[in-house]
Amino acid sequence: MDLSYYMELMGVAFFAISGALAAAEKKGHHNDIFSAFFTGFITAIGGGTLRDITLGNYPVAWVRDGNVLWAIFFGFMLTILFARYWVRIRKALFLFDSIGIGIYTVIGTKISLGAGVNPFGSVILGMVSAIFGGVIRDTLINEVPLIFRKEIYATACLSGATLYIVFDYLNVDKNWNAGFSVVLVVLIRVVTVRYNLSLPKFKLPE
Amino acid sequence: MDLSYYMELMGVAFFAISGALAAAEKKGHHNDIFSAFFTGFITAIGGGTLRDITLGNYPVAWVRDGNVLWAIFFGFMLTILFARYWVRIRKALFLFDSIGIGIYTVIGTKISLGAGVNPFGSVILGMVSAIFGGVIRDTLINEVPLIFRKEIYATACLSGATLYIVFDYLNVDKNWNAGFSVVLVVLIRVVTVRYNLSLPKFKLPE
Amino acid sequence: MDLSYYMELMGVAFFAISGALAAAEKKGHHNDIFSAFFTGFITAIGGGTLRDITLGNYPVAWVRDGNVLWAIFFGFMLTILFARYWVRIRKALFLFDSIGIGIYTVIGTKISLGAGVNPFGSVILGMVSAIFGGVIRDTLINEVPLIFRKEIYATACLSGATLYIVFDYLNVDKNWNAGFSVVLVVLIRVVTVRYNLSLPKFKLPE
Repeated sequence: MDLSYYMELMGVAFFAISGALAAAEKKGHHNDIFSAFFTGFITAIGGGTLRDITLGNYPVAWVRDGNVLWAIFFGFMLTILFARYWVRIRKALFLFDSIGIGIYTVIGTKISLGAGVNPFGSVILGMVSAIFGGVIRDTLINEVPLIFRKEIYATACLSGATLYIVFDYLNVDKNWNAGFSVVLVVLIRVVTVRYNLSLPKFKLPE
Repeated sequence: MDLSYYMELMGVAFFAISGALAAAEKKGHHNDIFSAFFTGFITAIGGGTLRDITLGNYPVAWVRDGNVLWAIFFGFMLTILFARYWVRIRKALFLFDSIGIGIYTVIGTKISLGAGVNPFGSVILGMVSAIFGGVIRDTLINEVPLIFRKEIYATACLSGATLYIVFDYLNVDKNWNAGFSVVLVVLIRVVTVRYNLSLPKFKLPE
Repeated sequence: MDLSYYMELMGVAFFAISGALAAAEKKGHHNDIFSAFFTGFITAIGGGTLRDITLGNYPVAWVRDGNVLWAIFFGFMLTILFARYWVRIRKALFLFDSIGIGIYTVIGTKISLGAGVNPFGSVILGMVSAIFGGVIRDTLINEVPLIFRKEIYATACLSGATLYIVFDYLNVDKNWNAGFSVVLVVLIRVVTVRYNLSLPKFKLPE
């Protein structure tokens, strides 16, 4: 239990870093330190907050627990202080990001099932938890959200959430289940990016 | 009662179709099948979810009732399988869409009145139910939302919601009231598009 | 108490005016009177509504109290009727806008503290109350939100909210505290715009 709490805080800090970096990379913006903090904040709490207000699950995590905000602040300070290093370790960042969305997917699916949501809805809310922070961030900085770009991203979350629910139904041990599901999300992202795979297109005939 | 439930599911499926088609038509996007599903999902549940979380009306419809999600999935499958036909029946689609927003307007207004909201607020929430799925969809795919474009769209919903409240106050039979209000929304849309009418402009003097 | 209620309604009307003007100024839009009303509405209620649904603080102000909607309608009518005058008093408008965000910051911080939110979270929610109406408005009309542009805007709110919490902790009289905090927000905005100050940039090294 304790471990999963610290994992969650790590996930929060990591999303804050990736959000702050996204703001700093955006061209043609006035990229000041507030924008970096704010986009980090939105990225870290957007998905979970949207899940909680959709479920009526009050109080929302960052409102209840000041540590979530300090984790964001910590991630923000790391981003500012070590800016030059983040650029060099882009590949490691991609892996961390994948682990982060895996963790968020599993937490979101688990909370939704626990709130009595039907399995289909829980899969959707697991995905929402993982990706909507980034969707809101991209929309605010006026970019096409990552989920509409080529990378298989949301589909990895849908797969991980589905695996979690199937294993939960089969009474697989909760910790193993969480582990397997996170690994599946990470694997799908890594393999599809490595081999440049994408989902089938859907265009209307002219 | 039963009938209105099936009408609502039909409305959901229809919005899922119109959302999926909007994604597929967007130029310069990577239009994969996930994007089609996701924009359909957002279009179908966005307005009602925003209404319910504004009212604190939990659990939100699609979280409580898995059938809403299956209706979306059904609409999505129809879109994929019959893509070539949708393009041909554009005019019928416009009519279906108008009926859909009419139904959503009436349902949203009725739920808001039932929750004790004042009439002005209920008119606004009726409109929000009908149009905000499309607004969120357009914002995510980085378009100017339809409500800010030329077509009289939101104003048709405001009119239908106002009629519903006036008739409700006058104790008109609920089913007739719902019918008249939907017809008013549809009529305003059809007539204004047919005769190319628009609201008065409001620009600041230079 | 009564006074603060009327101050809030004035703030609402003022935000409705600034929102309606923002819509009318946007180039390349179809700026009709509905767009003006709707952007005014979103600007006026967006931040407070997001704060209330994040806190689970139901019913949301404009849903409970029809006067909030009439204040928006009143602001909208003023905008339409006196359009030519607003353009002339741009400097006064900037001052009114700053007072408006100051008031919203203090109200949001106070409500959050009262709901038992930790100080860091209350500062954030005070800022959210003041700025998110504008953020949603800018996102909908497809502009880069003001908070990502050069002006020091959100940071002024963060400072005002922090002062309010420190003074609250020191048991400063509530009315004086509110007054001082609003003045701080206004001062920071006026001084930074007057002397063209901005926050330090944060860009990634190439």
